[in-house]
Amino acid sequence: MKLDKLVGERFKEKPTDCVIESHTLMMRGGYMKDVAKGLYSQYTPLKRICRKIEAIIREEMDAIGGQEVLFPVVLPASLWDESGRYESVGSELLRFTDRNKARMVLGMTHEEAAVQLVRDYARSYNNYPFMIYQIQTKFRDEARPRAGLIRVREFTMKDAYSFHTTQEDLERYYQVCYDAYNRIFARAGIPEVITVTSDSGMMGGSLSHEYMLLTPVGEDSIAICNSCDYRSNLEAAAHIVENQKDDHDEPLTKVLTPNIHTIEEICDFLKSPLEKSCKAVIYQTNQDDSYVVIFIRGDLEVNETKLTNYLGEEIHPATITEECGLKSGYIGPVNLTVNGKHTVIYDASLQGTNNLSCGANEEEYHYTGLCMERDVPEAEYIDIAKITEGAICPKCGKKTITISRGIEVGNIFQLGTKYTKTMNMQYLDADGDSHYPIMGCYGIGVGRLAASVCEAHHDEYGPVWPISIAPWQVHLCCLRSDDAEAKACADKLYEELQRQHIEVIYDDRKARPGVMFSDADLLGVPIRLIVSPRNLKESVVEMVTRDKSMQEKVSLENVIPAVKEWIEKLSAEQGA
Amino acid sequence: MKLDKLVGERFKEKPTDCVIESHTLMMRGGYMKDVAKGLYSQYTPLKRICRKIEAIIREEMDAIGGQEVLFPVVLPASLWDESGRYESVGSELLRFTDRNKARMVLGMTHEEAAVQLVRDYARSYNNYPFMIYQIQTKFRDEARPRAGLIRVREFTMKDAYSFHTTQEDLERYYQVCYDAYNRIFARAGIPEVITVTSDSGMMGGSLSHEYMLLTPVGEDSIAICNSCDYRSNLEAAAHIVENQKDDHDEPLTKVLTPNIHTIEEICDFLKSPLEKSCKAVIYQTNQDDSYVVIFIRGDLEVNETKLTNYLGEEIHPATITEECGLKSGYIGPVNLTVNGKHTVIYDASLQGTNNLSCGANEEEYHYTGLCMERDVPEAEYIDIAKITEGAICPKCGKKTITISRGIEVGNIFQLGTKYTKTMNMQYLDADGDSHYPIMGCYGIGVGRLAASVCEAHHDEYGPVWPISIAPWQVHLCCLRSDDAEAKACADKLYEELQRQHIEVIYDDRKARPGVMFSDADLLGVPIRLIVSPRNLKESVVEMVTRDKSMQEKVSLENVIPAVKEWIEKLSAEQGA
Repeated sequence: MKLDKLVGERFKEKPTDCVIESHTLMMRGGYMKDVAKGLYSQYTPLKRICRKIEAIIREEMDAIGGQEVLFPVVLPASLWDESGRYESVGSELLRFTDRNKARMVLGMTHEEAAVQLVRDYARSYNNYPFMIYQIQTKFRDEARPRAGLIRVREFTMKDAYSFHTTQEDLERYYQVCYDAYNRIFARAGIPEVITVTSDSGMMGGSLSHEYMLLTPVGEDSIAICNSCDYRSNLEAAAHIVENQKDDHDEPLTKVLTPNIHTIEEICDFLKSPLEKSCKAVIYQTNQDDSYVVIFIRGDLEVNETKLTNYLGEEIHPATITEECGLKSGYIGPVNLTVNGKHTVIYDASLQGTNNLSCGANEEEYHYTGLCMERDVPEAEYIDIAKITEGAICPKCGKKTITISRGIEVGNIFQLGTKYTKTMNMQYLDADGDSHYPIMGCYGIGVGRLAASVCEAHHDEYGPVWPISIAPWQVHLCCLRSDDAEAKACADKLYEELQRQHIEVIYDDRKARPGVMFSDADLLGVPIRLIVSPRNLKESVVEMVTRDKSMQEKVSLENVIPAVKEWIEKLSAEQGA
Repeated sequence: MKLDKLVGERFKEKPTDCVIESHTLMMRGGYMKDVAKGLYSQYTPLKRICRKIEAIIREEMDAIGGQEVLFPVVLPASLWDESGRYESVGSELLRFTDRNKARMVLGMTHEEAAVQLVRDYARSYNNYPFMIYQIQTKFRDEARPRAGLIRVREFTMKDAYSFHTTQEDLERYYQVCYDAYNRIFARAGIPEVITVTSDSGMMGGSLSHEYMLLTPVGEDSIAICNSCDYRSNLEAAAHIVENQKDDHDEPLTKVLTPNIHTIEEICDFLKSPLEKSCKAVIYQTNQDDSYVVIFIRGDLEVNETKLTNYLGEEIHPATITEECGLKSGYIGPVNLTVNGKHTVIYDASLQGTNNLSCGANEEEYHYTGLCMERDVPEAEYIDIAKITEGAICPKCGKKTITISRGIEVGNIFQLGTKYTKTMNMQYLDADGDSHYPIMGCYGIGVGRLAASVCEAHHDEYGPVWPISIAPWQVHLCCLRSDDAEAKACADKLYEELQRQHIEVIYDDRKARPGVMFSDADLLGVPIRLIVSPRNLKESVVEMVTRDKSMQEKVSLENVIPAVKEWIEKLSAEQGA
C-alpha cells in the first residue's frame, strides 16, 4: 500500500474532546472518524489492526474447541422476554419496532440467541460440553460514550457461550478459557493484563472475572492486595470492617446546627472525626421511585453495585420532595419518617458503634451521642460500602488494599442455569432424567482491545504497535523521492517486500523527512526502512524499530533477510 | 473437528416453508436456524463457508487497490437527511430513535457513510482515485423475506465505494471492478454468472450492472437476446414496439357489455385479439394516493420500475372508490373522468394504432373502433411496458428476446455525483477550481452468494460445495468405529491431516454407514475418505469426491499425498 493514497487524515492538533492518549492518537493518526456520539467509522489502519486481533482470538477460541457461529444483530424482543431481560435491562438495550410493529432489540450480548440456537440440538448429555462463539457487531445505547474506542455504542465483540452438564465441567472449561484469554492478551501485546474477580451484574450467575489493563486513565477501579493475590473490581469487593466502640456511651443530644447540611460540615462544626458520624445517602428505585435510605459511616461511600444487587433492582440518586417526609441535610436513623413505600439499609460499618453524630430529622438540628445498639436496636446490617485504600483484604485480612484504575479488556462469567431455566433448555442424562445445562460466557471487545494496546504502548508521537497486530509490518520511507536512484531503490524494495508477502506501507511522497517521520510515528508500524541518497552512498538502508530499541544500517542486498529476521525476533518476543 | 460435537441439527424432512432447494438443504444440513422472520443464526458450517467467501472477496478487492474500512451499522438519520434518502426510501429503511430521542437508521447501504468518511480527507485532486470497501452487517426491513438466505432482512454484505475526478476514470475503474467481480464468482464456484444491465433504482446514477445466476427459482426476470449480447434485467429493459395499423379507421361505437370487466373478457366477447385492445391499469402514488391511469396494449404488462422512475415516486395498485370518478372494469381513454389530482400515461404500444376495443367510462359499456390519433389526439406516449418473450431486442433489433429467471449475486453502479452533490463533498483541481467527485459503488451479499452456490451445485442429498468455499476440505468417515483397527487407522489419519493443515471433519460415531453418508452428503465436503475394516483388509482407504467424479482406493501410506493432489486438482479446476 502506498501512503499517498491511504484514505484518512493525519494531523498534529489534539482534538478537544479527547481525554485519553489512545483516543487522541487514533484520531490524529487517521484510524477512525466520528459518525455520531459513540459511533465511529474505521479507516484502513484500524480495520487491519482489528482483523489481526480477531484472527488471534479466532485461533485461540478454535484451539479450545470453540465453534464459530453468527447470531443476528437485530433480535426479536420475544427472546428477551423469555429470559426476562427485556424488562430488567435498562435503556442501554435499544428497543424498537419493525415495519410490521414487531418488537425488536439490537443485541448487546447474545445469551438468549445462543440458547435459542442450541436448545433443540443439545437434548442429550452426549452433546455436551460444547462452546460456540461469534465475532459480531453489538450495540449498547450508552448514556455517556467516552474515551474513543474504550466506551462506544457500537462495537465488535467476540462473545462465546459454553454449555455443560455439571458445575465441575463448567469450572474445568472456565479455567481453559481463562488461560486462553491470557494467551490472547499476551499475543496482542499486553501480557501485563491482570484478572480480577468481578460483579456478574445483569448477566446473572456466580463467579466471574474481568481482565484489566492497569492504567490511570481506566474507568474501572480495582482493589488489589499488596500482601496476597486478592484482586477484585471495586464494584465486587467486600468491605471488611473492624468497628471501634468508645468505652462509654454518651447520651443522645440534640444540637442546633444552623446552615449545616453535610456530614463533613457537622463533623467540622463538632470537631469530631468523620469516622464518628453516621451519614445518610438517599436513592430512589427506577421502577417506582420509592426511597432507599442508607446509613453508613461518614468516611465511607456507598457501593452502588452492591446496593443494586441487594435490592434486585436499578436505582438512581434521589430527588427529595416536600411530601416524602425526609429532611434533606438532616436525615438520621432516630425518629426517621419517610412517607410511602421505602427501604432503610444500615451498612456494616455502623454495627456496634457509638457516640456518633447524625441528622435529627428536623430542620437545623443534628444529634450527637448516637449509639447504634441503644438508639437503633432494630437495625440489621449489610455490607454496602466501597472498599478504600488501606482497607482490610477480604482474603488475607491484612490492611494492604490499594486501589488502582484499569480498562476492562475482557470478561468471563460462570452463568449457571439462569438462561437455560428461563428459556427452558433441557437435556436428558444417561438415565433419561431432564436437567438444565449450565452455561459459561466469555467476552472480548475487539476495538477496546486495540485502544488498550495503544494506551499501553505509545509515546508522545504516536502508537507503538506490537508486530502481532500492527497495521503493517514494515514502513518504507524514501527520503528525497525526487532523487532517481533513491526512488528506484525504494521502488525495488517495495516490490520485493510485497513479493515476499511482507506487509508494507510505502511512503514515496515528495515530502520533508519531518513530515514523513511524524506520519510514520502516527501509524506506529514496528519496522521502519529508510532509503535516502545519503544512505545509498554507503550502499545501505537504515532499519529502525518504532520504539528505537533496534537500529541498524544494512547493506542493500541484506535488507530482505534482515527484515525477516526482525519480524521473527519481534514476533518471538511477543509469543505472537 | 469431530462431527459428533458439531453443533446443529441435521434431518431428513423438508421444512414446510422451504420453496427452493438451497433453503431446504441448508436447513436440513444444520447450516442455519430461524430466529425471526428473515433473521437467521448461522451454525459453524455456514459461518466457515461465509468466511471463505469473504476472504476471496477481500483478496480481489485488495488486488484492485481497495482499502478495507468499517462503517457503523447504526447511523444517524442526519446523514440520510443530507442525501435526501431518509425521506425517499420506503419502509425497508428501519428508522428508530435512541435513548436520547436522536433519530437513527440501520444501514441498508452505506453511500452516505462513505462520503462522510472521506469528504474531509479527499479535498485535493491528488487524492483521487480511491476505493474503500467494508464487509459488514446490513439490515433491510423487507416486507416479504423469503427463500432462505436469498432474501433476508439482516445480511453480511461487501459494499465498495470508489471516487473519481472524471467520468472516464470512473468508467475505467468500473471495468476493473467488473472483471474483479467475475473472478470472485468464478473462484466461489459459479463462473456461469452473467452480467445484465440493470435499473439504478433508489441508488441513483446512470449505468449499472447486476451479476445473475440463471436459475428457474430466481426472483429476478432477465431479458436475454439470442442473437446479440444484449442482457438486461426485465425492470430495465426497453420495450421496442412495431405498431400495426389497419388500413381503415372504424367508427368509435359504444357497445353494451353486461358483466364484462376485464380486457380478456371483452376481447373474447368481441372475438377480437388482445393486441387490438386498449387496457387500463390503475395505480396510486404512495405519497398522496393520487391516481395514475395507464393505457397500454391489451397483451402487455406495465413495468412498474419504469413507471416509478418516470413518476419519480413510489406507487401501489389502486383502490377504486365511488368518489374518484373511475368506473372500475370500464375505464378507457375517451370521456375519461378522474376527480382530483391524477396522471394519465399512454404506453408507446398504442401510438398510431386503431380499431381497438376499450372501456367507455360508463357501467356495462365498452367502445370498439378506438383510433388513437383521431379519438385521443392529445396523448403523449412513453415506454412503460414489460418486455416479453419474442420481443424485439433493443440492441440488434431482431425478435430474439427470451426471458429467464436469475438470482442477483452482485451489482455495480455508476453513481455519478448524486451523493457528493447532496452531501457537499468537493475537491480542488490543479487549477484550484472546486468540483464534485464522481462515485461508483459495488455490492456483493455474502450469504446470498453462499445460497446461490448451493442452488447451482447440489443434488437431492445435499449441497456439493466447491473446494474454495467448502466448510472443510476433507470429510473422514470411520465405518465401524467399534473395530479397533479401523478406529486407530482413522484416528491416525485425522491427526495427520490436521498436522498438514488440511481442513477435516471427522465422523467416528458409532453410526450406520447410511447415517454417516447422508450426513456427509448434507455437509457437502468435496473429498471424502472412508476407513473401514473391509478396506483395511486390502490396506486401502476409499477416496471419493462429493460429486462422484473422482473415486479411488488409495494405499494407506499414499492417502495424504493423494488428498493434497486432489485438493490441488479441484482448486485448479476452479481457479480458486
